Amino acid sequence: MTASTAPVFELLQLPQESVGERFGRTVRRLRQARGWSQERLAERAELNRTYMGEIERATAMPSLHTAAKLAQALDVPLSELIQRCEPQLR
Amino acid sequence: MTASTAPVFELLQLPQESVGERFGRTVRRLRQARGWSQERLAERAELNRTYMGEIERATAMPSLHTAAKLAQALDVPLSELIQRCEPQLR
Repeated sequence: MTASTAPVFELLQLPQESVGERFGRTVRRLRQARGWSQERLAERAELNRTYMGEIERATAMPSLHTAAKLAQALDVPLSELIQRCEPQLR
Repeated sequence: MTASTAPVFELLQLPQESVGERFGRTVRRLRQARGWSQERLAERAELNRTYMGEIERATAMPSLHTAAKLAQALDVPLSELIQRCEPQLR
């Protein structure tokens, strides 16, 4: 494939991850670091297990209240949990 | 009123403020410190003005996404905005 015929790959502008995606990923990482199932964390946070999975997959956007319950269940200040999501956001 | 007839005031267990109440109060304080109306902040955060007032009065609980938009409009990292609400929560 010579340079001229090579398909020009547009520089894929990676979509900025949403706060929900970062939050879900961070919660999952902290949960797994504790060796907990989604069930266990949902129970500790007094959340529905299905909803818990949706938050991790970012198919549901938690309220501040729900985020605070998850932080408490993970025994991490909410501000610290949010901070772990931020570097990529700024 | 002798001691014996004095009504016994139960030690009022002050209800712990919710994360929504602290968040609303903190947003209001930061908005006023900038000399902004609710209208101005709602516009910057691309939020409905009425909903903006409900968040400040804690009659509406914002999602993480809405909280992130308010933080960006106030030009404060969300984690810092949350941290200002936390001392009383811990």
